[in-house]
Amino acid sequence: MNEQTPFRPKARLPRGFRDRDEAELAAERRMLDTIRRVYNSYGFQALETSSLEYADALGKFLPDSDRPNEGVFSFQDDDGQWLSLRYDLTAPLARYVAENFQNLPKPFRRYQVGTVWRNEKPGPGRFREFTQFDADTVGSASPAADAELLMMCADSLEALGVKRGEYIVKLSSRKLLDAVMDSGNVDGAKRSAVLRAIDKLDRLGIEGVRALLGAGRKDESGDFTKGAELSGGAIGTILNFLTIRERGENFYTAALALIGEELWNKGASALVEITNLCEVSGYGSDRIQIDPSIVRGLDYYTGAVFEAQLTFPVTNEAGEAVVFGSVGGGGRYDDLIARFTGQSVPASGISIGVSRLLSALRARAGAEVWETEPLIVVLVLDKSAIAESFRLARELRGAGLRAETYVGEAGMKAQLKYADRRGAAIAIIEGGDERARGEVTLKDLALGAELAKSTENRAAWVTERPAQQSVKRDQLVPAIRAILAARGKG
Amino acid sequence: MNEQTPFRPKARLPRGFRDRDEAELAAERRMLDTIRRVYNSYGFQALETSSLEYADALGKFLPDSDRPNEGVFSFQDDDGQWLSLRYDLTAPLARYVAENFQNLPKPFRRYQVGTVWRNEKPGPGRFREFTQFDADTVGSASPAADAELLMMCADSLEALGVKRGEYIVKLSSRKLLDAVMDSGNVDGAKRSAVLRAIDKLDRLGIEGVRALLGAGRKDESGDFTKGAELSGGAIGTILNFLTIRERGENFYTAALALIGEELWNKGASALVEITNLCEVSGYGSDRIQIDPSIVRGLDYYTGAVFEAQLTFPVTNEAGEAVVFGSVGGGGRYDDLIARFTGQSVPASGISIGVSRLLSALRARAGAEVWETEPLIVVLVLDKSAIAESFRLARELRGAGLRAETYVGEAGMKAQLKYADRRGAAIAIIEGGDERARGEVTLKDLALGAELAKSTENRAAWVTERPAQQSVKRDQLVPAIRAILAARGKG
Repeated sequence: MNEQTPFRPKARLPRGFRDRDEAELAAERRMLDTIRRVYNSYGFQALETSSLEYADALGKFLPDSDRPNEGVFSFQDDDGQWLSLRYDLTAPLARYVAENFQNLPKPFRRYQVGTVWRNEKPGPGRFREFTQFDADTVGSASPAADAELLMMCADSLEALGVKRGEYIVKLSSRKLLDAVMDSGNVDGAKRSAVLRAIDKLDRLGIEGVRALLGAGRKDESGDFTKGAELSGGAIGTILNFLTIRERGENFYTAALALIGEELWNKGASALVEITNLCEVSGYGSDRIQIDPSIVRGLDYYTGAVFEAQLTFPVTNEAGEAVVFGSVGGGGRYDDLIARFTGQSVPASGISIGVSRLLSALRARAGAEVWETEPLIVVLVLDKSAIAESFRLARELRGAGLRAETYVGEAGMKAQLKYADRRGAAIAIIEGGDERARGEVTLKDLALGAELAKSTENRAAWVTERPAQQSVKRDQLVPAIRAILAARGKG
Repeated sequence: MNEQTPFRPKARLPRGFRDRDEAELAAERRMLDTIRRVYNSYGFQALETSSLEYADALGKFLPDSDRPNEGVFSFQDDDGQWLSLRYDLTAPLARYVAENFQNLPKPFRRYQVGTVWRNEKPGPGRFREFTQFDADTVGSASPAADAELLMMCADSLEALGVKRGEYIVKLSSRKLLDAVMDSGNVDGAKRSAVLRAIDKLDRLGIEGVRALLGAGRKDESGDFTKGAELSGGAIGTILNFLTIRERGENFYTAALALIGEELWNKGASALVEITNLCEVSGYGSDRIQIDPSIVRGLDYYTGAVFEAQLTFPVTNEAGEAVVFGSVGGGGRYDDLIARFTGQSVPASGISIGVSRLLSALRARAGAEVWETEPLIVVLVLDKSAIAESFRLARELRGAGLRAETYVGEAGMKAQLKYADRRGAAIAIIEGGDERARGEVTLKDLALGAELAKSTENRAAWVTERPAQQSVKRDQLVPAIRAILAARGKG
C-alpha cells in the first residue's frame, strides 16, 4: 500500500447490487442442485458461456429500456470493440449455436445456470445482478420440444417442494396474438406497442391496458405514456381475447369464435398440440394452462410463450398477503440464431428466475430453507497450546462434524461471544487440568440462550439437559451428537 | 426481430473468453463441492459479494499491469461513478468487512467461490475470466490463522485426490524479505521492483533475476526491462537468500547467518511460529515448507505469503513433460481494510485457482475426471405417438436413470446419429407392433461402435453381448442396468 495516499474510499456497494450470506447461499445451492438434477435427468446437457460478449452478438431485445445503453452494462475493449455483460442466457446461447452449429447434435438441448446483469433502475427487491436457470431446445420446431420444457418446469417446481395447486405454468403464443391482431386489422408498426401494453395487464389491470391500446395513460406520478392508438373495434377484439378466462368461457371455443377458423388454425395449432401433449402425458390444466394474457417482455419471441407462476400467497414488504406471481418464463425464438447465420433455426426455451423463486420459498417457509449445518467452536484457553485445539477440531471433523478452532487473539469471554455471534451450537473448552484428566467441557449454546431467556424453565431443564457438562474425551462425539439431537426440541 | 436490418453480427467470443461443456462443468462442480465441504467443515462461512464494485473500492493492486486501466474491466455507471468487475475476491472482501465491521464475528472467517475478470492480454491457457476459491480470516494477527489456512489448503488438495508428495504448500514472508533488504540496505523506493524481479524466478531463472536486480534485462523479443539498479552487495545478499534451499542448507540457520539475529527476529518470527504449528499438527515439511523465493505478485501483501504447487509432471501444449507449478496462493494483507477505515485490521487468506487446478488434474487423469452420467435416448418411430416415448423416458427417470425423448423432427437414421453425437450409452426404440407385444428394442451404442471398428471380435461378441436386443417392457430397467454394468469392460 502507498502510505502517502490520503484518499480513503467509502466502503459501499454500487446501487442494485448486494452481498449474500451463508444461509441464503446454502438455500440457493440446494435449489440449483435440484433443478440441475431434473434437467440432467431429462438428458439436457450443461453449457456455460462467458459472462462478457460482444455487444452486437447479444443484440437489443430488452423490454422497456429506460437507460441510454438499453439496459445492458457495456464498455469498450482495448481494441475498440464493445463488450457487454450478458442480460440473459438466451442471446449468448444463440451466439454459441451459430458459432458451433456444425458440431452440435440436433436438436441441441442444453441447460445453463448463471449470473445475468441488467443496467436498470434498482428498487426494492429489484437488483441489477441475479441468477437464472435456463433450459433450451435448439433445432426443433416440434410442439413436443415446447411441451417437454413445460413439463420439465412443472417437475422442477415440484422437486423444489412447490406442491401441485401451488403453481401454474401458463402459455400463450405470439402467433395467436398476431392472429387476433390480424382479425382486428392492427397495423404492423403498432404491434410491439400492443405487446408492451398487454404485458402490463398484471400491474395496470384491464382499464390500464385499454388506455395503453388507445390514446395513452397517465400514471400516478403524472407521467404520460403514449398509447398504440388502435381503433375501438381493435381494442375490443384484443380485450375480449384477453378476458376469455376471466369470463369463465372455454378458451378454445371463445377464441375460435372471436377470430374465425382460418386465423385460429394459423395462430393456435402449435399451442393446441402443446397442451394436448401435456394432457396425455398427465400434465393437465391444473398444472399447464393456456392464458391469453401471457406475452413476455423480451422482443425475440416468435411463437409460444411461457410463464411459470406461484399461486400461493406470500407477505410482501408492506406486510400484505399477495400472490407471488411469475418465477420464470420463456418461449419460442425461431429467428434469434438467424441474426448471425441468415438461416432460421427453430428454438424454444424456459428460464427460472432463481433469485425470485428463492425469495418466494423463503417468504413462505420462513427460516427452514435457510438452515445451515450446526457449528462447533473449540475455544482456546491457553494460546501456547492451540495445536491441541487444532487436533480436537480435526478429530471432530473426522467424525463428520463442522468444527473450528478459535484463531483470534482475545480472551475467554470474547471467545464465547464469538461463538454466539457465529450462531454456534456448541462450544468446547479443554483446559490444561481437564486435559490431564482426559476430560473436556461442553457448552450447549442454544440451550444456554434459552435458559437466559426464561428463569422459570431453568430448574426443570438444568437437571435433564445441563447447559454445560464435562465429558470424557472418548465420549465427546456421542455427547455432541446427543446435544445436536436434542436441539430445537426445547 | 426487425426484419429490415441487414446487419449480421459475426458469432464469435471476445478474445480470452470461452464456453465450457458438460464434462468440464461436471468436473468443476465436483471440485467446488469438495473444497466447499472442507472449508465448511473448518467452520468457515460462505459469502458471495457482487461481481461489480466501485472502482475505488477495489483499488489497484494487480502486478505487471500492461493495460491502461490496470488489468481491470471498468466502465462508468449512469451517475458517472466508475464500476469495475472484480479482479480477485480479496479486495471485495476488504470492502465487505469495512462496510459491515460492527456486525461481524471477530475473527471473521469466510470462503467465497466466484468468477474473477482480468483485462489482460489473453494467450494460450490464459483467460480473462476464471474461477477462484478463497478462504480468509479477518481480524486475527495470530500465526494460528495463517497455519490453519495452510493446513486447510493441504487438506483440500488431498480431498481432491492429489496425494501426499504430489503437492507442496510453500510459504515465505514479505517481512522476512524486508529484513533481507534491510540487511542489503535496499532503498525503500526500489523494493517493489525487487519483489517483481523475485516473482519471476520461476520463469527467468536466477540469472534473469540477477539482471533485473541490477541494470536490467533484454528478453528474447528484444524488449528491455529496466532493473532495480541495486548495488552488487545487495544483489548478492538477495540471491544468497533466494538460493538457500537450492544449496541444500538448513533454511533457519542459513537465513539467520545471512541477516543476523536482530533482523531475523523482526522478519521471521511469525513464519517460524506458523511452520512450528503446522509441524506439531502433523503437517510436516513434506507438505508445508518455507521457500524464500515465494513473494506473490499482488501488491497488498504485508506479511506471510503462500503458494500451493503441484509437483507431479504433466504434459504441456507442446507435448513436453513439465511440472505444473502454482495452483493457488495468498498471504497476509493487514492494511487492505485500513484503506477504507484508517484502522489496521489484520487479515490473511488463501486462494485456489480452480480453473488452473482443474486443467492440471485433467492433464494427469485423462478423461476420468470429465466423465458424465450415461444417457439413454428414447427414439420416436411414430411422431403421433411421441407421448408414449415421453412416458417411457419418464419411467426410466423414475428409476434414477438419465433418459431423454428425441424431440426433433428427423427420421430414424438421423435419430441414431443424434444419439451417437450425444455420446448416449443406449438407444431405445418402441415400434407400434412391439408396443402391442409389450416389448421394446434396446441398442447398446457403445458396443455397436466397438463392433463397427473390429469385424474380428464381432462373432464372439454378438453371442454374449448383442448390440441390439428386444426385451419385455417390465424387463427394461434391469436390461439397461446390465448394459451399463458391462460398459467399458469390452
